[in-house]
Amino acid sequence: MPFELHPRLAADTFVIGELALCRLLLMNDCRYPWLILVPRREALRDFDDVPMADKPAFHREIDFASAVLRHETRASKLNIGALGNMVPQLHVHVVARFEGDEAWPGPVWGFGVAKPYAADAATQLIARLARGFGV
Amino acid sequence: MPFELHPRLAADTFVIGELALCRLLLMNDCRYPWLILVPRREALRDFDDVPMADKPAFHREIDFASAVLRHETRASKLNIGALGNMVPQLHVHVVARFEGDEAWPGPVWGFGVAKPYAADAATQLIARLARGFGV
Repeated sequence: MPFELHPRLAADTFVIGELALCRLLLMNDCRYPWLILVPRREALRDFDDVPMADKPAFHREIDFASAVLRHETRASKLNIGALGNMVPQLHVHVVARFEGDEAWPGPVWGFGVAKPYAADAATQLIARLARGFGV
Repeated sequence: MPFELHPRLAADTFVIGELALCRLLLMNDCRYPWLILVPRREALRDFDDVPMADKPAFHREIDFASAVLRHETRASKLNIGALGNMVPQLHVHVVARFEGDEAWPGPVWGFGVAKPYAADAATQLIARLARGFGV
């Protein structure tokens, strides 16, 4: 069965591009620069479900996302999370945090309501991130 | 400088034992079976700060914690998180989640107030987890 992005993730994000293993998404929430990595494999749910052969790329891409996001945003802190209580398809959040951001110092998940980007802002940020990732 | 557990983590958890890289802790919150892994290295803050030579063990131990916790609790879902907005020492949460638990389907971080274990319950769970981990 080919990989298909969960419709909830598709609705809430923009596609930045494809890494070797993961589809790289930008959450449509301008409160925080927020990436989501989705391994293009079927039927993964938990973090440790990634097949052994894919684990090195999985971990490398989480680190890569952290490095690019830190560089592009100058974030003081990154938050990594794999929850999936509501969306069963394995996806990893990499979120740039700033002291004083809306949810600081709490988690972004389940906090308030997403604020969609203005169209121009989204286009520009996606282009900048795509360049940063080389995708 | 030798590794020292952050006092906030020390206050909120029980030590289960030591893995090759990480100190393995049980959060003193009986609302959810909740492990915390702390790499015994100084000055790590973000998930990708783990030195290259330690990354394989780091990822392996997160997966190991997931497997043992799933086996011991029969959890329907695991949540993985590395936030560190309040406690600057890198620590990874591995939390067993159940439909209908107190925070379900939201994140456990920042939700309500920890409910400490009764002394007997903590002792028994720590012993059972230590056996599961072989530590």
